[in-house]
Amino acid sequence: MATWSNPSLIVAAIFLVISLTSATVANGGRSGGGRRLVRSYDEPCKKMTLYFHDILYDYSNSTANSTSAAAAKPTALATAVSPNGTFFGEVVVFDDPMTEGTRALPPPSSLRETAAARAQGVYLYDSKEVYDAWFAFSVVFNSTGRRGTLNLMGTDLMSEKTRDISVVGGTGDFFMSRGVATLRTDAVEGLVYFRLQMDIKLYECYI
Amino acid sequence: MATWSNPSLIVAAIFLVISLTSATVANGGRSGGGRRLVRSYDEPCKKMTLYFHDILYDYSNSTANSTSAAAAKPTALATAVSPNGTFFGEVVVFDDPMTEGTRALPPPSSLRETAAARAQGVYLYDSKEVYDAWFAFSVVFNSTGRRGTLNLMGTDLMSEKTRDISVVGGTGDFFMSRGVATLRTDAVEGLVYFRLQMDIKLYECYI
Amino acid sequence: MATWSNPSLIVAAIFLVISLTSATVANGGRSGGGRRLVRSYDEPCKKMTLYFHDILYDYSNSTANSTSAAAAKPTALATAVSPNGTFFGEVVVFDDPMTEGTRALPPPSSLRETAAARAQGVYLYDSKEVYDAWFAFSVVFNSTGRRGTLNLMGTDLMSEKTRDISVVGGTGDFFMSRGVATLRTDAVEGLVYFRLQMDIKLYECYI
Repeated sequence: MATWSNPSLIVAAIFLVISLTSATVANGGRSGGGRRLVRSYDEPCKKMTLYFHDILYDYSNSTANSTSAAAAKPTALATAVSPNGTFFGEVVVFDDPMTEGTRALPPPSSLRETAAARAQGVYLYDSKEVYDAWFAFSVVFNSTGRRGTLNLMGTDLMSEKTRDISVVGGTGDFFMSRGVATLRTDAVEGLVYFRLQMDIKLYECYI
Repeated sequence: MATWSNPSLIVAAIFLVISLTSATVANGGRSGGGRRLVRSYDEPCKKMTLYFHDILYDYSNSTANSTSAAAAKPTALATAVSPNGTFFGEVVVFDDPMTEGTRALPPPSSLRETAAARAQGVYLYDSKEVYDAWFAFSVVFNSTGRRGTLNLMGTDLMSEKTRDISVVGGTGDFFMSRGVATLRTDAVEGLVYFRLQMDIKLYECYI
Repeated sequence: MATWSNPSLIVAAIFLVISLTSATVANGGRSGGGRRLVRSYDEPCKKMTLYFHDILYDYSNSTANSTSAAAAKPTALATAVSPNGTFFGEVVVFDDPMTEGTRALPPPSSLRETAAARAQGVYLYDSKEVYDAWFAFSVVFNSTGRRGTLNLMGTDLMSEKTRDISVVGGTGDFFMSRGVATLRTDAVEGLVYFRLQMDIKLYECYI
């Protein structure tokens, strides 16, 4: 007669239950229609590639189409600390368009309509020796397909080919999301424009 | 004789176990007195409504009672980028009182004693076209009832009636919390004062 | 004959399964080699003590060895708001060395090689009455033993002996980590140098 004190049966049961309960779904204890947490540590539960376009001066060297601006120029002290001219201490506020499926920046006149998302926040140059930046910002989705925000934070070690920052939270369609975004420098045009490829990979999704 | 190879029995067992383990409690493997994770995706495991009071100038147009200050005024570049006067690039540091259960700001003389919490951090105006702000701050609880902090980050799209930002972490009584805070503009008095209603909803609580 | 409809047996089974599944391991549903989430609410799944060294001016009162710089000096408004000279509104960008196992700052010439990690980001003085600071930064590990980053955010209430900030995310060897860092002021030398002890405790590790 099978009894629960048989260790091998218990082990077998536990193994099955571990496999199934925490495999990819931890159910939210909901009655019908509620949210469900999907965790997936090896493969993202959601991923997308967005291009982040930062325009400090536009191509005619005016600011008419600029999407970012120095909030604070390096102080005299910051400049003294950084003899290499790495903009140590410069704080830049941005409201940058992001495109999806294309690297091309839409014409400024249709930017608001065609951008897949906007990235709003701040970066700052945080090294006296090399060009490194630190980012904290929100990606704002506001299309018929997706509404909500992702909040990101991390350091952009520009000398590395790819570098990871954290997705620390989300709202709306990205409710409570967490993950990692991998950044790649995709284009740099002096101090006028740069483009980052951002591969956003969410490993905790609530759907 | 019941054997574990009977699929229907195993399925029944797993169903029960899923329901109970991940319904709302994932036990912390503790011996008595330890922490326990409560997840609840549809209903918050903890919620509260706080009013955030930001005073740039007080009512007599002095700064005596101010709770925030521009850390960096928009640079010439930021002003050029934003012809609409949306303060693009202005960075404001704040140490703002939060009240609970009342919209009324207590008299400045008793503010420290009566405020339910303080919000400490930074917001920055991050749009050249409209009034949008980006927030990153800590809510500091320091009363007999609650001690600890919540850390929040997100974009405040002021033109929307409500907008969500992320609760990305917590300490003390809010150890490891995560959630969403819904912001509503509750009052605006020119450049002197504004009040936000913040409905803080935690969906991961460690109790 | 044991049947599943025997309540006491089911309860016993569930108890065992809860104990084991959520004790410290929630398996990532992986086939061999994948990541695994380790949660531990009472004891950290990973911990380390790092010393954070911030040098504004070096010991000869020059900036040659400085690791941080004021990005924005308090504006006239900020100064007016804070008659107590608490630097309310000052924003400081830093790229600070962190040591492990020793409080001693290595000689500047070998700092890059010997520092256990670097802390890159920003702090700002956020109180008009007392010395309080708000931090948001990344800890960058780049040694043979550990590669990756931790992202932290929170308020540093300096008048308290210890204060906690949040670890809100991580990358590389610290993929998706969360936790708490406890700060202690370990040394202060006027406006020239300060050292914080940071006890970093991760309660969610993906290994």
